[in-house]
Amino acid sequence: MFGCLVAGRLVQAAPQQVAEDKFVFDLPDYENINHVVVFMLGTIPFPEGMGGSVYFCYPDQSGMAVWQLLGFVTNEKPSAIFKISGLKSGKGSQHPFGAMNLPQTPTVAQIGISVELLENLAQQTPVANAAVSSVDSFTEAQMTPNPSEAFIPANVVLKWYENFQRRLTQNPLFWKT
Amino acid sequence: MFGCLVAGRLVQAAPQQVAEDKFVFDLPDYENINHVVVFMLGTIPFPEGMGGSVYFCYPDQSGMAVWQLLGFVTNEKPSAIFKISGLKSGKGSQHPFGAMNLPQTPTVAQIGISVELLENLAQQTPVANAAVSSVDSFTEAQMTPNPSEAFIPANVVLKWYENFQRRLTQNPLFWKT
Repeated sequence: MFGCLVAGRLVQAAPQQVAEDKFVFDLPDYENINHVVVFMLGTIPFPEGMGGSVYFCYPDQSGMAVWQLLGFVTNEKPSAIFKISGLKSGKGSQHPFGAMNLPQTPTVAQIGISVELLENLAQQTPVANAAVSSVDSFTEAQMTPNPSEAFIPANVVLKWYENFQRRLTQNPLFWKT
Repeated sequence: MFGCLVAGRLVQAAPQQVAEDKFVFDLPDYENINHVVVFMLGTIPFPEGMGGSVYFCYPDQSGMAVWQLLGFVTNEKPSAIFKISGLKSGKGSQHPFGAMNLPQTPTVAQIGISVELLENLAQQTPVANAAVSSVDSFTEAQMTPNPSEAFIPANVVLKWYENFQRRLTQNPLFWKT
């Protein structure tokens, strides 16, 4: 029913089914993963009124599973790209995989898909910065509204200002020389 | 052999084979596409020493096909995410699909995959800003080496400088007031 693709690696189309409505893909060497694509294979749609919540699960320093909600796939939006490389905060969110106690290996993370009612999905809030489309719109809107525009790190301006201020204090007319 | 996935849509796993070594996926409504994932299905690897160059083809205003090289897939890197939403420059690149004369529909673009010798691929330069991973590394390395760092558009600094210069000319001690 589902496929999972780590950018740069081979596609996976055979998740482990850990419950009637729960599917898990292993992500070996997850610390070297930037983007993960989760998609429906197109063979079996969700039952009417159902969709899938997509979770990223990784081991924290003590080997406990931390789950974060990445987003959703539905019959209307049967695929999504998620950026997981920034998700290292360690703050877990509520998740429906609790009792399953997936074995945690330090270098292996998981993608978990939970089939749920669409109205339940609508009440869940994915972790910030995982959806590739919102990262894009942030980048384009806030950082590069015009691709030809250049940006300067704020601390460079601050350092210049502090330097300028110091020289101005020493000699109020230094800038004329 | 290949799959193609537009983020948010159903996966395509049956390209049109337009020559022995050329495969084409249609991308309907391509102006609403941000990201495209191209991947090997994992069933048939490339022959030894071969790989695939991945092209994006879209109709220009007069309906002529414009081809741009997005990047590559190989047995070692069997999948890639490309950002095509920024590729509207209209400048085409050299491509091996020339004689095929694919029918152009105003709203339909194509992904073309050409199987070639790896040493030929190594001499081809993809269009800038299409590879999602290089966009990332550019963003992270050049724009936000530290996520807590802020950036200022260069023209804001320039405007401030011009303003400061003007006021300094009018009154060399204005900054003291």
